[in-house]
Amino acid sequence: MIKSQNLIAGRWHDNPKASTFQTVNPKTNQVLPTSFQEATSEQIHEAVAKAAVVFDRYATTSFSKRVKFLKAIQSELEAIGPKLLKTYQEESALPEGRAQGEFQRTIGQIQSFIALLEEGSFVQAVIHTQGPDLRKMLYPIGPIGVFGASNFPLAFSTAGGDTISAFAAGCPVILKAHPYHAGTSALVAEAIYKALKSSDLPLEIFSHLGGVSHSVGSQLVMHPMLKGVGFTGSFAGGKALHNLAQNREEPIPVFAEMGSINPIFITEKRLQTDENLADTLAQSIVLGSGQFCTNPGMILCCDSSGENHLIKSLRKRFNEFSLAPMVHSNIEKKYLEQLKTLEEKQTLELSKASQSNAALGWVTASDLLKNQNLMEEVFGPFSLLVACKSIEEMTSVAAALPGQLTATLLSHETDHPKLGSLIGKLQNKVGRLLFEGVPTGVAVTQAMQHGGPFPATTDSRFTSVGTDAVYRWLRPITYQDCPNALLPAALQNENPLALNRIVNGQQTQASL
Amino acid sequence: MIKSQNLIAGRWHDNPKASTFQTVNPKTNQVLPTSFQEATSEQIHEAVAKAAVVFDRYATTSFSKRVKFLKAIQSELEAIGPKLLKTYQEESALPEGRAQGEFQRTIGQIQSFIALLEEGSFVQAVIHTQGPDLRKMLYPIGPIGVFGASNFPLAFSTAGGDTISAFAAGCPVILKAHPYHAGTSALVAEAIYKALKSSDLPLEIFSHLGGVSHSVGSQLVMHPMLKGVGFTGSFAGGKALHNLAQNREEPIPVFAEMGSINPIFITEKRLQTDENLADTLAQSIVLGSGQFCTNPGMILCCDSSGENHLIKSLRKRFNEFSLAPMVHSNIEKKYLEQLKTLEEKQTLELSKASQSNAALGWVTASDLLKNQNLMEEVFGPFSLLVACKSIEEMTSVAAALPGQLTATLLSHETDHPKLGSLIGKLQNKVGRLLFEGVPTGVAVTQAMQHGGPFPATTDSRFTSVGTDAVYRWLRPITYQDCPNALLPAALQNENPLALNRIVNGQQTQASL
Repeated sequence: MIKSQNLIAGRWHDNPKASTFQTVNPKTNQVLPTSFQEATSEQIHEAVAKAAVVFDRYATTSFSKRVKFLKAIQSELEAIGPKLLKTYQEESALPEGRAQGEFQRTIGQIQSFIALLEEGSFVQAVIHTQGPDLRKMLYPIGPIGVFGASNFPLAFSTAGGDTISAFAAGCPVILKAHPYHAGTSALVAEAIYKALKSSDLPLEIFSHLGGVSHSVGSQLVMHPMLKGVGFTGSFAGGKALHNLAQNREEPIPVFAEMGSINPIFITEKRLQTDENLADTLAQSIVLGSGQFCTNPGMILCCDSSGENHLIKSLRKRFNEFSLAPMVHSNIEKKYLEQLKTLEEKQTLELSKASQSNAALGWVTASDLLKNQNLMEEVFGPFSLLVACKSIEEMTSVAAALPGQLTATLLSHETDHPKLGSLIGKLQNKVGRLLFEGVPTGVAVTQAMQHGGPFPATTDSRFTSVGTDAVYRWLRPITYQDCPNALLPAALQNENPLALNRIVNGQQTQASL
Repeated sequence: MIKSQNLIAGRWHDNPKASTFQTVNPKTNQVLPTSFQEATSEQIHEAVAKAAVVFDRYATTSFSKRVKFLKAIQSELEAIGPKLLKTYQEESALPEGRAQGEFQRTIGQIQSFIALLEEGSFVQAVIHTQGPDLRKMLYPIGPIGVFGASNFPLAFSTAGGDTISAFAAGCPVILKAHPYHAGTSALVAEAIYKALKSSDLPLEIFSHLGGVSHSVGSQLVMHPMLKGVGFTGSFAGGKALHNLAQNREEPIPVFAEMGSINPIFITEKRLQTDENLADTLAQSIVLGSGQFCTNPGMILCCDSSGENHLIKSLRKRFNEFSLAPMVHSNIEKKYLEQLKTLEEKQTLELSKASQSNAALGWVTASDLLKNQNLMEEVFGPFSLLVACKSIEEMTSVAAALPGQLTATLLSHETDHPKLGSLIGKLQNKVGRLLFEGVPTGVAVTQAMQHGGPFPATTDSRFTSVGTDAVYRWLRPITYQDCPNALLPAALQNENPLALNRIVNGQQTQASL
């Protein structure tokens, strides 16, 4: 049985009078059986207020207790694996391989935060004993609202990177489930709830709210005791939450990852020498039916032959694909509407694939520069090819681009001396700059940056993928002349957690 | 001669038609001779737009060139020391010792950022070669608007921590001079201009704008090419800039440090055993005529004797002080108005010093908890004493406090076992928690945190004092599979800058 109730501060809170909603199998258009309850204002308030009450206690919980909790979440998820993946596929139409891959990614993320806590130095302890005794470390900011993402029902949703990084930081989480995969979300929420019950932690550090209306999310973000927000989704959604949060009496940080067109720049020499290019690009554009924030939505290439080999090869490959439907009919509808608008109102050639909704556009760089709205994301299996005359023209496009999660520069060794100025422009626009491969596929490591200048995200100084995601939920606190016994363990003379600390300017694990 | 013109992108831009304004000696009320020009919309636009054009070039400038530039600023400031300090004192009425101390602090800050750049590891290079080759480092965010602070004409103004940390990060700076010390600011701007001319750097990385109207600052913050803002001042000013910045088409980070009441909690045992307490507190409250963001505006103490020794001792000492006037008559006027309102409308006893504007209030904790507006900052030589019955009552006040830069907990060893819950509450409210001494005096070290939860600052995840202030102006960028020759020096295999880097999870200075 999938829980239809909301989980409010550790209690499944049945509300027979609630408005309800159901999820739909996008493959069959069949309505799935569970009637999920929409969270009420009272439930939202109770969830945040009770999280705020237990915040101090969870904030000062030892890393080893947090590790135990995260390990329990992992076990509970593994225990419901087959059921979870079945519901995931029913609600999203994403294929089995993707479901399994995303499940493994979710488990892998949990393990990476377990490792972070086991090592512990992420609190960045700095001790300065010359002059007043100053000892600084990172401390959690408070209860966090996390929004599930439609395109990643597991890895960027209920037990995804936002939730797990906030738990690792020492912050309670109030999760707003994405209504398109409410069942998947409820199953994961139940796993977290069970993990919490088996840990010696306050149950109030996790709540799970359902809702199709924007009102549930807005009320959550506006709650005066909420201290931060994590969101992955559309520009409209992320910007709306950011505006709400910044115009509260107390503004709070919103980390909204709002997608990108992830341009790929291809030099002429590369185009001539890379035989796998069309295959690689085509696969990346249609991967997951195009529903990746790092989907390459724009491909710029220099081709002085006038033969336009790349677009021809891509069109051919596109006609061979048969794709799964998008995760929800609303998303597919919006995608098709955007294509229609492009076709009717824009200076471009549009070609649609014969067996799927995949599509390609074709425009010259000079026309693109005259139509800035062609730089807006078309979320789905679409890419806009841009014919450039030269690397200089590519550089002009790079300078005109809005902020991006990624850009990719595919060149040949002989081009390198000519790329300085293009790289200079791209550096200002992106969080990640690739020189080989495709932007889809975001490795979960400390060296990853998933976040770029606005409008890609609302705060380019942080990442939502990789262990550094924890820094969104932490702030420094300095203890001055604090008696050793009253200090947090991370700052005590004896270094009982064996952390790497900076003591009077030197990195050391030694005690004082 | 003090420059009356604005410095726009490396050129002193005379505008005979400009509105002008003059500064005033607060001691004598004498109007000082220079007629400063108010910056025009065209000048503001030119300053930001030209900074944006040269941003790429400065962002990729070597650390050694930035070091040369900062060293030249230091030399130019030292060369004009006597003239600068004379103007500083004329415009602010702050005494000579303070002027000299603040000058040294400003030089010391520059030196600390020189050391940061010479060492270089602040860019936090992380290299991961297992899987795709991912190399991450910090990169500057773009042109920064910095606002001079009325209460620190040097250390938090034109060549203060905001400007120097932005320059160290690789960001151009557009400085909005504080109109109360426009002459001091113009002298410092000229020193920076000269330093820039002697360096091999684009002159457009620094502009200096004058103005008494809010419009100059608003236009600066609203300029689409500005990427960040540093501000130290009032809550009203900081919040207004934050609102402007967040409601731009592209929101940008604003680091506004808006002051605090910096409560001091004193246990009964401490009150009984610390003979120097009244002296230390009185000195801290009237230091700089109370014009410090870390001024202790609230003192909570447990005194079951009913004798109220502390308030009596403080009153006595207050009557002995003669204080310099505040830095501007507007500030003094606002301070006196706030005292009047407190006297007329609030449940407290107010006692004024006989020879100065210093004042003390006296209220019970239970009355304070009923009047949340008594927790608002009164900027000046004032403190509100709060009579508490117990540590538990102190804890209730701590829980009700708005966010603070600092709190201080003065206790006796025998109290330590009873302080857990009070410390727990205070940790959530402050950036710095002191256990001895007074909050005035903010050491410039890496272990300092000067920034706390809202409304103390707009982003508690950063500090405006100490070398970590550089992180406000940096964001991560990851290079994926980048040819070694195209990588920034900090990420190249050979580690040519000899940085401490994290390579495959291990901290090392070794090359790959």
